[in-house]
Amino acid sequence: LPESQRDGSMPGVATGLAVTGAGGDVLYVEAATMEGEAGLSLTGQLGDVMKESAQIALSYLRANGARLGIPVEALSGRRVHVHVPAGAVPKDGPSAGVTMTTALASLLSGRPVRPEVAMTGEVSLTGRVLPIGGVKQKLLAAHRHGITEVVLPKRNEADLDDVPAAVLKDLRVHLAEDVSEVVAIALAAEDATARTVQAA
Amino acid sequence: LPESQRDGSMPGVATGLAVTGAGGDVLYVEAATMEGEAGLSLTGQLGDVMKESAQIALSYLRANGARLGIPVEALSGRRVHVHVPAGAVPKDGPSAGVTMTTALASLLSGRPVRPEVAMTGEVSLTGRVLPIGGVKQKLLAAHRHGITEVVLPKRNEADLDDVPAAVLKDLRVHLAEDVSEVVAIALAAEDATARTVQAA
Amino acid sequence: LPESQRDGSMPGVATGLAVTGAGGDVLYVEAATMEGEAGLSLTGQLGDVMKESAQIALSYLRANGARLGIPVEALSGRRVHVHVPAGAVPKDGPSAGVTMTTALASLLSGRPVRPEVAMTGEVSLTGRVLPIGGVKQKLLAAHRHGITEVVLPKRNEADLDDVPAAVLKDLRVHLAEDVSEVVAIALAAEDATARTVQAA
Amino acid sequence: LPESQRDGSMPGVATGLAVTGAGGDVLYVEAATMEGEAGLSLTGQLGDVMKESAQIALSYLRANGARLGIPVEALSGRRVHVHVPAGAVPKDGPSAGVTMTTALASLLSGRPVRPEVAMTGEVSLTGRVLPIGGVKQKLLAAHRHGITEVVLPKRNEADLDDVPAAVLKDLRVHLAEDVSEVVAIALAAEDATARTVQAA
Amino acid sequence: LPESQRDGSMPGVATGLAVTGAGGDVLYVEAATMEGEAGLSLTGQLGDVMKESAQIALSYLRANGARLGIPVEALSGRRVHVHVPAGAVPKDGPSAGVTMTTALASLLSGRPVRPEVAMTGEVSLTGRVLPIGGVKQKLLAAHRHGITEVVLPKRNEADLDDVPAAVLKDLRVHLAEDVSEVVAIALAAEDATARTVQAA
Amino acid sequence: LPESQRDGSMPGVATGLAVTGAGGDVLYVEAATMEGEAGLSLTGQLGDVMKESAQIALSYLRANGARLGIPVEALSGRRVHVHVPAGAVPKDGPSAGVTMTTALASLLSGRPVRPEVAMTGEVSLTGRVLPIGGVKQKLLAAHRHGITEVVLPKRNEADLDDVPAAVLKDLRVHLAEDVSEVVAIALAAEDATARTVQAA
Ligand SMILES: [Ca+2]
Ligand SMILES: [Ca+2]
Ligand SMILES: [Ca+2]
Ligand SMILES: [Ca+2]
Ligand SMILES: [Ca+2]
Ligand SMILES: [Ca+2]
Ligand SMILES: [Ca+2]
Ligand SMILES: [Ca+2]
Ligand SMILES: [Ca+2]
Ligand SMILES: [Ca+2]
Ligand SMILES: [Ca+2]
Ligand SMILES: [Ca+2]
Repeated sequence: LPESQRDGSMPGVATGLAVTGAGGDVLYVEAATMEGEAGLSLTGQLGDVMKESAQIALSYLRANGARLGIPVEALSGRRVHVHVPAGAVPKDGPSAGVTMTTALASLLSGRPVRPEVAMTGEVSLTGRVLPIGGVKQKLLAAHRHGITEVVLPKRNEADLDDVPAAVLKDLRVHLAEDVSEVVAIALAAEDATARTVQAA
Repeated sequence: LPESQRDGSMPGVATGLAVTGAGGDVLYVEAATMEGEAGLSLTGQLGDVMKESAQIALSYLRANGARLGIPVEALSGRRVHVHVPAGAVPKDGPSAGVTMTTALASLLSGRPVRPEVAMTGEVSLTGRVLPIGGVKQKLLAAHRHGITEVVLPKRNEADLDDVPAAVLKDLRVHLAEDVSEVVAIALAAEDATARTVQAA
Repeated sequence: LPESQRDGSMPGVATGLAVTGAGGDVLYVEAATMEGEAGLSLTGQLGDVMKESAQIALSYLRANGARLGIPVEALSGRRVHVHVPAGAVPKDGPSAGVTMTTALASLLSGRPVRPEVAMTGEVSLTGRVLPIGGVKQKLLAAHRHGITEVVLPKRNEADLDDVPAAVLKDLRVHLAEDVSEVVAIALAAEDATARTVQAA
Repeated sequence: LPESQRDGSMPGVATGLAVTGAGGDVLYVEAATMEGEAGLSLTGQLGDVMKESAQIALSYLRANGARLGIPVEALSGRRVHVHVPAGAVPKDGPSAGVTMTTALASLLSGRPVRPEVAMTGEVSLTGRVLPIGGVKQKLLAAHRHGITEVVLPKRNEADLDDVPAAVLKDLRVHLAEDVSEVVAIALAAEDATARTVQAA
Repeated sequence: LPESQRDGSMPGVATGLAVTGAGGDVLYVEAATMEGEAGLSLTGQLGDVMKESAQIALSYLRANGARLGIPVEALSGRRVHVHVPAGAVPKDGPSAGVTMTTALASLLSGRPVRPEVAMTGEVSLTGRVLPIGGVKQKLLAAHRHGITEVVLPKRNEADLDDVPAAVLKDLRVHLAEDVSEVVAIALAAEDATARTVQAA
Repeated sequence: LPESQRDGSMPGVATGLAVTGAGGDVLYVEAATMEGEAGLSLTGQLGDVMKESAQIALSYLRANGARLGIPVEALSGRRVHVHVPAGAVPKDGPSAGVTMTTALASLLSGRPVRPEVAMTGEVSLTGRVLPIGGVKQKLLAAHRHGITEVVLPKRNEADLDDVPAAVLKDLRVHLAEDVSEVVAIALAAEDATARTVQAA
């Protein structure tokens, strides 16, 4: 199995897509929860905007968890830690919002993220998926890493024109307007959970 | 439905008007509340003055909620999060005060903001609506986004002279001295709530 | 009624006098209290010295409230917010000390500040009223805004020589050595409270 | 009565001696206590070293109060505020240590500081009085302000040679090695308290 | 016994490998726990990235302790302190992650780290061991200090080509993909604990 | 008695040795404890490294107090304050670690430090005594101040070659590997405590 598939099988990890100085790259968002003072620990040399993305993702889930069937009440009296490796590489920008929300939804629901799925998109506090940059580089990176499904903001639909057809034919592309759609696409089906973990 | 109408139908979201380097623009203030340490989380790369606007809006409602019929006692033991997308765009200034107050009043009362209404104005701690700049650009932007009603500070009345008649004839303009007037204009009628949500 | 009179009729608002780059000006100090973590929120782009003035004002009242007949025990488990509009204008200096003390005493006692009174003076932690600068510009500004009574530090008495006679004849000037004198002058009589509010 | 005497009659105020760019000066340290989160609020634009002096003074009293007969247990669940007017003048240095300790000892014991006494000296955490600079300028300032008794560090004894005889003959100079000696000299006798307050 | 062996016999100390301006070096991570406010104290002039490594190590153990048989529930109501001597030497980078995790696992389990083992590797929040730099210098330093076993990231396997054969023949090299493997290799067998401590 | 002897007779004070721009000097570390929020207050214009030394000293004692017979459980619900006079002199470096540990051990055990002993050495979190610089200047300073016993890190043994024989013959030099040895050397015998205090 490629690495992304191995990582994806544990609840709390989601695969994002980033743009770096050297093109696109795949990026993992890792989430964990533990007893302790309520709050959010953030590591991975995250910049201000990316730290805010994590706060927004957690607030969205805490405010909307009941409606989405995600047991956020389990967070009471617990601390959440979100880390984005590699530890020494500075990262910033809002486009990991959907990935952070998905990693946290996976952690809280206990359902792993499907390892063949990667995603990118800003999230607002009400769950709207806002457009991001670098669609072409991000899809090339996903393809290169063996990803077969990607979730993009609906408002980035026009950017698919720039993606080589040879790449697009290997990728199933989902366009989302609300982050609840991203979560529904990315999380493994509940009855598939045990099986997926064993396959990893 | 245009986007502003869709956004407006969820309690906790209000439509503001801002001035940017490239003219006026529409801006959404999103508010959510969740269990947790009492306090206010602010995201959206807000500057010092805009962060203070959010503090003032929340303090005004907490100090005056009983008088205004807004159930602020529900905030006890809960955290409030205010976000202003887009996440990577720095924002500052006091003119979102009425919009923040309205978003929070909508969240607390459960009544959505009417999607055809946008607003701008500084708010003081006692609820006075203070004048702001950029009336012409803000009204052009509102018009461009399909807004049909705007609320402005009474003390900006003279600035309406600069707004093209072709724009003004499509806009119902309210002039407010106190933020409680803004809230009353902007929130959907209580008996209209269910219907408005279904229409969205 | 002029604006200053309207503002003055609500407990928690006091009228101060400031010096700006463009002469003197009238300035409102607004105070509110709400349930929450004990402490003091300060907004209005206040500088270090002015923030300390607000801390001193609150400490003075908390330490001396019983003696002054101000029910400071009501602050237990409550948060105090002091704001000085306009929100985007930086402000600094110690001379709003008497105004902050008066606004807080008004808020805690429920007695409005008489709208015809404005004041200026530094306050020490024991309530001494210390001298300030800009007496002439401040009194000109008070006069221009329809104020008819001003409270100044006793130690600024000599500065009244510089104020035009035409201005002085319209102003009743009080000279105070202790901030309790300022509060006694500025707050509406207790039996007058209901009437004053209705007149506003 | 001169001002220093008036100020001295209230528990919690002590008269210090400082060196400024323009020679020596008299300086008042004011202390107050109030219900609230345990801790120390410091105002008066104090620099790092002077803030540490206040922490040391309070810790010394809290650790040694029982031995000194000062009821420090009354501080439990209360906040202490130390202010040094004038509010806008930056101040720094360790030489107000004895003055801060005396002001706090006065506040806690309810015994006023004798108004004819001024003092200067660094204090260590065990109460040692350490030498300071500017003895000549400080004694000239004390004399000018009508002070008749001063307390200096024993280790500054040699600096008295520089003080004009005409000044020294009007001053009773105490030399202290331990801050408990300073407190004993400066506080009014317990049975004199009521009388002193009435005389003020 | 060489120093590294002496140090290794106390639970809570693990031997890491670092790169400095002057080649590789051995570095000790020391961990202790004590009653007090829950949280993590970090000393040793650690940079931002290395502080985050310690947070990640602690969160990993708190989130996965039950699964790994490490009694993390003992941390409730206790504070953790991680120090990396020498105290005046600034240190940074993510490569002490495995060492920090091992020191904490040793502290919590009460099992000492085997003194002949040194380690290097970044750790992610899910326990993945990520590659680091300086393998050659680190192994030369380990050899020089009498270390006989080293644990490296599996993804650094190719870097072993650069290490002199004379060094490699004295070192047993373990390649790890998950930090739980590092902990299993490094901790002394449970039944060996008493004996090892006595030998020290 | 020389000053160092007087100071040494009170529990909580230990004599250290420092290097300054002008050679070596004697330095006192003072520790006190009081009711209040658990934690550590540090004064004396300490730099980052020296602040960390104090944290390490306190953590070492809290983690190892039971084993060393030091009643650290008495710290529960109490605050510790460590001060290093003179208040206005900036100080930094790790070499006061043994002195801070000894001052705290003296405070907690109630046993004074023997006034004829001075010490220098970095301490790690497990109590190892690490080497420091300036042995020659520090021993000259100790000698000059009438100190007759010094404790140095074992790993500084070779530096004794540089110390003049005339100084060494007046000093009893102890070499320590573990800070518990330093504490045992420095604290007065338990049955000697009452007598020592009376002699002071
Ligand atoms: Ca930034
Ligand atoms: Ca991304
Ligand atoms: Ca600013
Ligand atoms: Ca606006
Ligand atoms: Ca300042
Ligand atoms: Ca003023
Ligand atoms: Ca400083
Ligand atoms: Ca002084
Ligand atoms: Ca950094
Ligand atoms: Ca390492
Ligand atoms: Ca530093
Ligand atoms: Ca030292």
